[in-house]
Amino acid sequence: MADPRFFQNQGPFTLTELAQCCGAKLSDESLAAKEIHDVAPLDRATANQISFLDNRKYVKQFTETKAGACIVHPDLAEQAPAHTSCLLSPLPYKAYALVAQAFYPVLTAPSASAIHKSAIIAETATLGENCIVEAGVVIDDQARIGAGCHIKANAVIQAGVELGDGCQVGANATLSHCLLGKGVVIYPGAQIGQRGFGFAIDPAAGFFTVPQLGRVIIGDYVEVGAGCTIDRGAGPDTVIGRGTRIDNLVQIGHNVQVGEFCVLVAQCGVAGSTKLENYVMVGGQSAVAGHLTIGTGAKIAGKSGVMRDVKPGQEMMGYPAMPIKEFFRQVASLKKLSKKGKKKK
Amino acid sequence: MADPRFFQNQGPFTLTELAQCCGAKLSDESLAAKEIHDVAPLDRATANQISFLDNRKYVKQFTETKAGACIVHPDLAEQAPAHTSCLLSPLPYKAYALVAQAFYPVLTAPSASAIHKSAIIAETATLGENCIVEAGVVIDDQARIGAGCHIKANAVIQAGVELGDGCQVGANATLSHCLLGKGVVIYPGAQIGQRGFGFAIDPAAGFFTVPQLGRVIIGDYVEVGAGCTIDRGAGPDTVIGRGTRIDNLVQIGHNVQVGEFCVLVAQCGVAGSTKLENYVMVGGQSAVAGHLTIGTGAKIAGKSGVMRDVKPGQEMMGYPAMPIKEFFRQVASLKKLSKKGKKKK
Amino acid sequence: MADPRFFQNQGPFTLTELAQCCGAKLSDESLAAKEIHDVAPLDRATANQISFLDNRKYVKQFTETKAGACIVHPDLAEQAPAHTSCLLSPLPYKAYALVAQAFYPVLTAPSASAIHKSAIIAETATLGENCIVEAGVVIDDQARIGAGCHIKANAVIQAGVELGDGCQVGANATLSHCLLGKGVVIYPGAQIGQRGFGFAIDPAAGFFTVPQLGRVIIGDYVEVGAGCTIDRGAGPDTVIGRGTRIDNLVQIGHNVQVGEFCVLVAQCGVAGSTKLENYVMVGGQSAVAGHLTIGTGAKIAGKSGVMRDVKPGQEMMGYPAMPIKEFFRQVASLKKLSKKGKKKK
Repeated sequence: MADPRFFQNQGPFTLTELAQCCGAKLSDESLAAKEIHDVAPLDRATANQISFLDNRKYVKQFTETKAGACIVHPDLAEQAPAHTSCLLSPLPYKAYALVAQAFYPVLTAPSASAIHKSAIIAETATLGENCIVEAGVVIDDQARIGAGCHIKANAVIQAGVELGDGCQVGANATLSHCLLGKGVVIYPGAQIGQRGFGFAIDPAAGFFTVPQLGRVIIGDYVEVGAGCTIDRGAGPDTVIGRGTRIDNLVQIGHNVQVGEFCVLVAQCGVAGSTKLENYVMVGGQSAVAGHLTIGTGAKIAGKSGVMRDVKPGQEMMGYPAMPIKEFFRQVASLKKLSKKGKKKK
Repeated sequence: MADPRFFQNQGPFTLTELAQCCGAKLSDESLAAKEIHDVAPLDRATANQISFLDNRKYVKQFTETKAGACIVHPDLAEQAPAHTSCLLSPLPYKAYALVAQAFYPVLTAPSASAIHKSAIIAETATLGENCIVEAGVVIDDQARIGAGCHIKANAVIQAGVELGDGCQVGANATLSHCLLGKGVVIYPGAQIGQRGFGFAIDPAAGFFTVPQLGRVIIGDYVEVGAGCTIDRGAGPDTVIGRGTRIDNLVQIGHNVQVGEFCVLVAQCGVAGSTKLENYVMVGGQSAVAGHLTIGTGAKIAGKSGVMRDVKPGQEMMGYPAMPIKEFFRQVASLKKLSKKGKKKK
Repeated sequence: MADPRFFQNQGPFTLTELAQCCGAKLSDESLAAKEIHDVAPLDRATANQISFLDNRKYVKQFTETKAGACIVHPDLAEQAPAHTSCLLSPLPYKAYALVAQAFYPVLTAPSASAIHKSAIIAETATLGENCIVEAGVVIDDQARIGAGCHIKANAVIQAGVELGDGCQVGANATLSHCLLGKGVVIYPGAQIGQRGFGFAIDPAAGFFTVPQLGRVIIGDYVEVGAGCTIDRGAGPDTVIGRGTRIDNLVQIGHNVQVGEFCVLVAQCGVAGSTKLENYVMVGGQSAVAGHLTIGTGAKIAGKSGVMRDVKPGQEMMGYPAMPIKEFFRQVASLKKLSKKGKKKK
């Protein structure tokens, strides 16, 4: 299925190998040696391909699939067609992610170093073993790159920056004043570590830049999307916690602390000095004002504007953001009011 | 008028030449040989310049213009001053676009190849005739660049990417996992083809990346603005239809299908797997949620948030988006209600 | 305090030196020779460090600080601990900015030229004295760079662009069709001067690009944030007035005129041909529609959508934007209405 110009299929794998890689159980051990050649969606998979069922909306597709194998929750396996071997998993989408990664690895450790001759690497910079540094990359003084990193074309890594092992930096990305953990993925065109938006105002004389003396600290396995901007701290650091995923064009202001395993959807913004605790989800195009605390597990719906602290687990929506039920109640009230006004005319 | 440091005037042209290039009719054939040296707005144009009248708000400026020639709708031509020759067109702004392009071409096919010596082009990459490849460009393995393309400084074209004839790629843009038609214009700093925002969540163990195995397919004559981000598909492709124009800092999620001749204004976002049919307009800073269908010719006002399918031709506004008349009715109702509350105090 | 990998402390300084650099007055002249080694926040500063008190919320921290010196308003100085020398200033945050800049300069004029050998500088381009041009930079024909400029790695400066003295251009930024004053700071990944979003529509034949024949004119000491996009004018110029500060991911359309000392917060957008007069503040994620005038000193709250002219000094919020008091009144009215509806059920 995947275009061979862009994706190299590492298969085939036996059902046993796939079950092992994703922690699933084979529904029929007699098929352990069956060979699977690719992944595909339920409605397109063929006899030597594997698919998955995660959403009950697609049960009908599942019962009619031609897939040779399918990852499925144990409760639904009995509805599989006779020709479809089942890999049973309580978390089929996660299991699919791991199976698909087996066919198409997403974070491959380079097996040897490959430094393009056009890359400009300062003498005082250090690189770990087995790094790939593509054409046009610039790595400046005292930067320290861990083992197995892949720095893509024309990326810029400024002085003193540190990357843990196994990081990927996208083309045309810029890193300055930051320290990255291991396995961090920076997408192309992201800009990290520039001076925060801090200045004093003298009404008679204009603006005076306040030096921004903090850094950006990025935890293990964080992903930062294309075109994102993350400013360094003003004194404290800007911190992105372990495992957090940030979509494209997201803005993170200075001194922001993002907890672990947060999800920030495209084009949202978090203003200076705000703290997101762990497992917070911020929807696309939402904004969180500065100096707030958003509690563990809180969810901010897309396009919301959060102006106050949010308690752990709360789901908020609207502008100013309010509990999501209240938001939809207000939407309904206003609709009703407006209808009434219309009738009166 | 235009600064010669940045723009090279290809004129002068006779009125006949200009009329031909834009399909207009001369109001007075005796002036066919009159020479025009530049374009200019109505209020600034002089005797050897050409202007246009497209909006009736500017009729007064038209009647007082010093322009030697003016493109105008036939119905308004009789109001022209005596010294102003008219080029009659039912679509004056389109005609002006073509006339201005004659003076200042926007998509010029290079007349010869010019590959800067600092560009890094993989041996297995292929370039058509008459391409310009500027300094610092990186073109990776198996990429195929059509004839007459212009790749600007420090742009990165990753492995396997294909460009049709006559494409322009802006400085510091990155292309990966994508296939472009002919005449496509990618503005500087756009990031196209990176991995979509897809991962499975295991509450006990974090996030697991789902390989994104699709591509970005961009139709003929599409324009993608500065700093835009377009993710490749998860399995299906992300598709941008022929002729569509995308402004700056727009986010397009994985699997999105944008139809032909759509207009996406700056900072809007379209979430994963949504389909925009043809001729859809999405206003600035609007968001369209995932897995929706927006019908042919629908218009989404700026700053709206679309949470449901939109029928062809509908005009929507607000958050959640509603028909535009209903939006303004609600705005009025709420204003009235709040006034009433104020009086009671 | 500041990480020496990224920041070089230029201290120590005597209290006299610090008082002079920020125009403050020493509370006790007998301590004029006391040496201060660094800046730090009130709650972390030690005996040889200087802090500041700007916000009355932190008076308690001030009374308990261990800082050897503190910048403070004369009215509050008497509450200082005995071991804390006071620098008296009517604008303590501004004074702090200047003191911190003494320790950690933000706009240092290079003391000598340093052109990296990998930079590609056209023969017809000119550079002033003492410029730093980093690796991978491309400077094209006829570009003119003032004295003391610092162009960071892989930035692209296209043909004809002019920079005044003392400008900084961030990594991976692109400048075309623009003229910059002195002391301008362009952050990494900003894209300035590309063609504006202008085209004519022929319903039967698609879109026709209107050549964009203006420039971007950027006044002295302007700062343009990471990932911003500023389109050049269509005929008139796009103008950013002296001293204005633009945060990250801001979009400025063609022909926009931004006055002096405006503040545009992250992810806001200003549509084509709109004029912001001086001292206008636009909050994060706000949008200002096209062809409007926003009066001197007006303030647009975050996430607002301005659809009409705004008078000088007005504070606006909401979508469509209204006076801020009216906005909160409407929020309260709707909340009340929705509560009432709830009770009825």
